[in-house]
Amino acid sequence: MQPLPNFDLILFGGTGDLALRKLLPALYRRMVAGQLSADSRIIGVARSEISREEYLAQVETSCKAHVGGEFDAKQWARFSGQLTYFKIDANVEGDFKAFAESFNGREKCERAFFLSTAPDLFAPICEGLARNNLVTSCSRVVLEKPLGHDRASSALINERVGAIFTEQQIFRIDHYLGKETVQNLLALRFGNMLFEPLWKRGRIQHVQITVAENLGVERRAGFYDQTGALRDMVQNHLLQLLCIIAMEPPQSGNPDAMRDEKLKVLRALRPMSGREVLAKTVRGQYKSGAVNGAPVVGYLAEKDVPAGSSTETFVALKCEIDSWRWAGVPFYLRTGKRLQEKLSEIAITFEDIPLSIYERPDKPHSLNRLVIQLQPDESITLSVLAKNPGEGMFLKPVSLGLDFSETFKTRMLDAYERLLTDVIKGNLTLFMRRDELDAAWQWIDPIREAWEQYGESPKSYTAGSWGPAAASALIGRDGFAWSNEL
Amino acid sequence: MQPLPNFDLILFGGTGDLALRKLLPALYRRMVAGQLSADSRIIGVARSEISREEYLAQVETSCKAHVGGEFDAKQWARFSGQLTYFKIDANVEGDFKAFAESFNGREKCERAFFLSTAPDLFAPICEGLARNNLVTSCSRVVLEKPLGHDRASSALINERVGAIFTEQQIFRIDHYLGKETVQNLLALRFGNMLFEPLWKRGRIQHVQITVAENLGVERRAGFYDQTGALRDMVQNHLLQLLCIIAMEPPQSGNPDAMRDEKLKVLRALRPMSGREVLAKTVRGQYKSGAVNGAPVVGYLAEKDVPAGSSTETFVALKCEIDSWRWAGVPFYLRTGKRLQEKLSEIAITFEDIPLSIYERPDKPHSLNRLVIQLQPDESITLSVLAKNPGEGMFLKPVSLGLDFSETFKTRMLDAYERLLTDVIKGNLTLFMRRDELDAAWQWIDPIREAWEQYGESPKSYTAGSWGPAAASALIGRDGFAWSNEL
Repeated sequence: MQPLPNFDLILFGGTGDLALRKLLPALYRRMVAGQLSADSRIIGVARSEISREEYLAQVETSCKAHVGGEFDAKQWARFSGQLTYFKIDANVEGDFKAFAESFNGREKCERAFFLSTAPDLFAPICEGLARNNLVTSCSRVVLEKPLGHDRASSALINERVGAIFTEQQIFRIDHYLGKETVQNLLALRFGNMLFEPLWKRGRIQHVQITVAENLGVERRAGFYDQTGALRDMVQNHLLQLLCIIAMEPPQSGNPDAMRDEKLKVLRALRPMSGREVLAKTVRGQYKSGAVNGAPVVGYLAEKDVPAGSSTETFVALKCEIDSWRWAGVPFYLRTGKRLQEKLSEIAITFEDIPLSIYERPDKPHSLNRLVIQLQPDESITLSVLAKNPGEGMFLKPVSLGLDFSETFKTRMLDAYERLLTDVIKGNLTLFMRRDELDAAWQWIDPIREAWEQYGESPKSYTAGSWGPAAASALIGRDGFAWSNEL
Repeated sequence: MQPLPNFDLILFGGTGDLALRKLLPALYRRMVAGQLSADSRIIGVARSEISREEYLAQVETSCKAHVGGEFDAKQWARFSGQLTYFKIDANVEGDFKAFAESFNGREKCERAFFLSTAPDLFAPICEGLARNNLVTSCSRVVLEKPLGHDRASSALINERVGAIFTEQQIFRIDHYLGKETVQNLLALRFGNMLFEPLWKRGRIQHVQITVAENLGVERRAGFYDQTGALRDMVQNHLLQLLCIIAMEPPQSGNPDAMRDEKLKVLRALRPMSGREVLAKTVRGQYKSGAVNGAPVVGYLAEKDVPAGSSTETFVALKCEIDSWRWAGVPFYLRTGKRLQEKLSEIAITFEDIPLSIYERPDKPHSLNRLVIQLQPDESITLSVLAKNPGEGMFLKPVSLGLDFSETFKTRMLDAYERLLTDVIKGNLTLFMRRDELDAAWQWIDPIREAWEQYGESPKSYTAGSWGPAAASALIGRDGFAWSNEL
């Protein structure tokens, strides 16, 4: 663990959920780990007229809640000493001017602007920073999703931000890529000889990517109703995971070598449009039900959801990748709110053996599977058939598990801890390049357009279930089942 | 666990080490497990003039010592009720006659003659049985190694035994094939899609088979000095393990389908003879040293070893298999007495990845390995590189282990428990066919002949070491190292 260079990290949206729940606790942890130099600064920025003390009190409460037993008053005193607050309204030029003065003498220090705001503020903030000479050659900007709501709006943001920051200075974050298990999937694929010969059509039968939440829209209904699951989750997280699974081995560990390969996957996704969309996708919206035994309201009854909204809170999709490696191997993606449990996983099912000479369970239980679980716990499990001890030769599934905590005895970094340190070190590997983002939107837009064109309203599903029955039928038509249905 | 049919099991060599330490405890356990019908009989046979009571006392002592905490007086009473003793001298016709009478009325019962005697008694015993009409259509004979001391003597035994029993009635035992992990290696290879694409040249770099004992010759010096490690261990156990690894997938679970494939491997072993033998083999003989901290004498000082004996107590070999699957993949075999520890394992090292984009340990620690351990514990471990948790991308070896006791909560069968029940059920899968035995000798004989021809006397090694330095050099010349040297 190397100490980071001196830096100024400016968190726009500094009083928001992401900053308080994730970013600041992550930075606190990195300080405890000894990575933050004493001369580094963290600056929360928001529109609220609050004092530094009021801000520190907010952050302290949140850090306590989120780092749990690791919270320590002495460490907090040190951390809070490096933390300050600045009120900026992106539309008030004077706010930027006053802010700029606080950087006098720190021009050579790494400077990262983390924009955790509504996307329509991305360009105005960047432009305000530029006008006030806050953008130096050692500055970076971090953009949180959503980066627009379609290809055109995303292009516009990228255009305007790109006029101020070079592509090498722009860090488009997708925190799923910062997860230890996603990194480990890369390590397993490209650090071992064992997987590559299996990683292709003829060896892999199908792939499932599930990102299931048991929460509802919570306090985000205003934003969420304008967005929906397809744009909120599939366009970024699920497609990024798909890229990590499907990409060719990169030529080097260089960020662009990896991003080139991810881009190739996005461009190889078979486009779908028109009526085909209706056959290969399922939209859903939760109605009232129960989660973990407690009754919950339906989406339409949630606070701030407009009456009769037809926003989807669930999507299932069948994707195909037109490449030599993947032609004919379906990738099934699904994500939703108010599902039965919180579960993010990638499940790779291998083809059957060509001939079975031993007694074994019926399919699909006799098929080898590699399951990479991202939530609630991070784990990697390979399921194989082994001999049942005792007489005869009867095969039974057993799991070969990769237990990180057992093996390494090291606390795993939270995704944002990793990604924030990468920003400060200038490592772009785990961030999305402009062309990737564009390719993802290019594939996503026609799906939404087809839903609108054919008036495909979402199918309702009971909160606490695994989504609409149509999602099971989607995968069932190909003879498979979602992993929770096995 | 199905009950076995009624049977008579006749143990020739019934007072010997194998019967007392392995076979009778194995049968006791099968009785406790409920597999032995009350009408079955176990008959110890030997030349000693001892009473049934004396025999039972010997067996009881031995069972107590070998089944440990599972020994139970009530179960023993039941077991000993089915156990009897008969004195037979194979050269005394009258002994057989008296013995034959005890089978009156049991002609239709499964009858297994287990010959755990010197091999020169195999034919005389079988012939004595035949002359006295003890061989019925539901009789079987089990032959313990050694089956002769070379190809010619083994052929003679097979010829004479084969004149009395059909090949389907002859069970040539190699207890290594009865081990749970060896069965599991078959299950993994032929029950899963994951391994077959990796199981060949280009994917596997080399294979090591080690059968190391820390014991010396113990009480067997008289026999051992006439035999040596090559014939005592390599010709049977090590070559059988090699066959299990190298065989093609059998067409069915039928015993001959598997034995056909094993035979193909033995026939594909590249023959070595003359000077080539000196380059590809290492003979060793232990001198005094220390094992587990206690001083031990050298082989030549062991009781019953003739002065100046040049018998080898250690062999290392490099084998090559001339087949499409294995051409160019070396198989290194080694076995010896008075080595550092008791260890039987198969270690399969995979080829390196073609390009490494992440930081990782130096070779060979960065190579994937599958290790099947047979002794002292049975386990299967796959070592892969995973990401070291924390910043950056540094790979570290981790182990994916198959923990049978965890997964199945079932006591594993001892090899002889499995093999004895297979004999009674008539399942030949795990027993060697005559042509296999012949092919093994055909490959082994020229090695011994070349040693004699060129006067290759064994290199001495210190008891408690891993054998002569030449064994390390043998594998080292190819750029590899024995697994204990990693």
